[in-house]
Amino acid sequence: MGEFDFIATYLAPLAGPPGLGLLDDAAIFSPPAGRDLVITKDAMAEGVHFPMGHWGADTAEKLLRVNLSDLAAKGALPLGYFLSLSLPKAFDGRWGKGFALGLKTLQDEFDFTVWGGDTTRAPGPMVISATVIGSVPSGTAVRRAGAKPGDALLVTGTIGDATLGLDIVLGQETGRKVSAATGEAIWHWEQAYYRPQPRIALRRLLRAHASAALDVSDGLIADAGHLAKASDVALEIDVDAVPLSTSTQMWLAAQDERKVGLSRLLTGGDDYEILCTVSQASVDTFISGAARLGIPVTQIGHVGHGSASADRRVRPRDSSGLVWDFEVAGYQHF
Amino acid sequence: MGEFDFIATYLAPLAGPPGLGLLDDAAIFSPPAGRDLVITKDAMAEGVHFPMGHWGADTAEKLLRVNLSDLAAKGALPLGYFLSLSLPKAFDGRWGKGFALGLKTLQDEFDFTVWGGDTTRAPGPMVISATVIGSVPSGTAVRRAGAKPGDALLVTGTIGDATLGLDIVLGQETGRKVSAATGEAIWHWEQAYYRPQPRIALRRLLRAHASAALDVSDGLIADAGHLAKASDVALEIDVDAVPLSTSTQMWLAAQDERKVGLSRLLTGGDDYEILCTVSQASVDTFISGAARLGIPVTQIGHVGHGSASADRRVRPRDSSGLVWDFEVAGYQHF
Repeated sequence: MGEFDFIATYLAPLAGPPGLGLLDDAAIFSPPAGRDLVITKDAMAEGVHFPMGHWGADTAEKLLRVNLSDLAAKGALPLGYFLSLSLPKAFDGRWGKGFALGLKTLQDEFDFTVWGGDTTRAPGPMVISATVIGSVPSGTAVRRAGAKPGDALLVTGTIGDATLGLDIVLGQETGRKVSAATGEAIWHWEQAYYRPQPRIALRRLLRAHASAALDVSDGLIADAGHLAKASDVALEIDVDAVPLSTSTQMWLAAQDERKVGLSRLLTGGDDYEILCTVSQASVDTFISGAARLGIPVTQIGHVGHGSASADRRVRPRDSSGLVWDFEVAGYQHF
Repeated sequence: MGEFDFIATYLAPLAGPPGLGLLDDAAIFSPPAGRDLVITKDAMAEGVHFPMGHWGADTAEKLLRVNLSDLAAKGALPLGYFLSLSLPKAFDGRWGKGFALGLKTLQDEFDFTVWGGDTTRAPGPMVISATVIGSVPSGTAVRRAGAKPGDALLVTGTIGDATLGLDIVLGQETGRKVSAATGEAIWHWEQAYYRPQPRIALRRLLRAHASAALDVSDGLIADAGHLAKASDVALEIDVDAVPLSTSTQMWLAAQDERKVGLSRLLTGGDDYEILCTVSQASVDTFISGAARLGIPVTQIGHVGHGSASADRRVRPRDSSGLVWDFEVAGYQHF
């Protein structure tokens, strides 16, 4: 299957009007009046961000979910996206069909369309990237900068599941360490890794109440550091308050050292939950509003009142008041 | 040099306001009122679209020039861009510095800025992609579709230089075939390959007069086919009218068979000139207007009056009236 066939057969039917049927060099888009555009670009490489030789649909879903998660953190609604595929010589038509199916699943769920992109053949691992465009009412996008001393620090969903999911995907079979590990737990972790849930539904609440937000991709502690740096504040985090799924609580209980296990969950990546700061007066409104949308939100700390020293912006403590140090302050790609 | 250092040291100083200092997950952009956005995404792989181990500045320039050429064909003015870099493990700080220098050169020339992107480390060849955003007054973007029977077919600049440049770059030393080949000719071809000139300056004339346009990236004949297909017309091309540079004319004169040599120039890629259709009444205005901008434009044919059969949309003839067949109807990446 050639480049043009792949695009015509599988991608063109997914294109929205700005994509001009994927027959042109570019997309042409009339931006909605009174809205700002929010644009994000993320790439994934086979063997680095997803396993080698995986089914196309899972790969497509992960690529779009990861990018949508960035939009969600800004409070944006997705409109469209562009793809770049750099594929090895042995391009597989079945893989392409699966990839397009994964795109369609996400397009249907989040009501956005493909507008363009390009395909390239190159040796080596597959590298795919997406540029996703969303919008917010003008001036309302939520940024990493903006957290204020005294604001509550909140996180959606649960943390650490994707880290355990990756262990399973990589064949390390972490699940077996838990005597009570069920197929359900393993499924839960794998799903957390392959199908993070972009919190697009939270966009109105984030725009109305969040002083700062980002999505947790490099690990909770590292991303808290990014938010703290952009906002020039310090964050106090109660590590024992960080929400864990039932399966992950069981995994943690079976570890020899709770602190080692919990550190791993808090520094692993790929959670794609939203970490945000909200004024104390808005915390209840935010949490109850999110609950009505089916999104659990948990307070895990607050923005400190003291001055923020650049080398100690994130201050994790456990319930006993002990300050934790993290050797690994997040995943760097190179 | 790590990912964050590379971004902070070399890319952040190049960022425009929507890029939020490259410290956020996304760019936030207020689209100008009364304008449509034109968006294009192109990737390049080392060893496929540019030579292995090349200096960063040339690579950056080529990536942006190729994308800007797509915008130019739509009649758009560039505003900003996003980068994705997938780099091998041996990331070289000097390469990064050169890459940033190439970006800055293009930003300064075309007055646009970087708004975001991401970097990834993966084994294998370097893969880089850019998404470039431009704008046109609402409703004025030029498309591939729109050519009308009787319209003149025009092309900017000269064709085939980049094909010979790639030969030189690949070490095939085509230049030596020309007894009179000077260092100047070799330099000219290499520059054509590395530094195609995006015809952004032509945007107002294209918007005012072109019924259809695209940039020549896959080869003149193949891209004429793309325009013809999108417009549902047939294109009559006089192959002897296709503009060639002096150096390339000398190369062609030294070939054993003129037809073989000229076919190669007309089907080679990487020209990044604009191919467009313009009503007969506008041809003189268009060509003289372009000349005032320093852009040579040549009529090489016209849109046929007869019906267009899908398998014969491009009809190249030489001055004697002989119809040419091209075995290779353009470069496909896979």
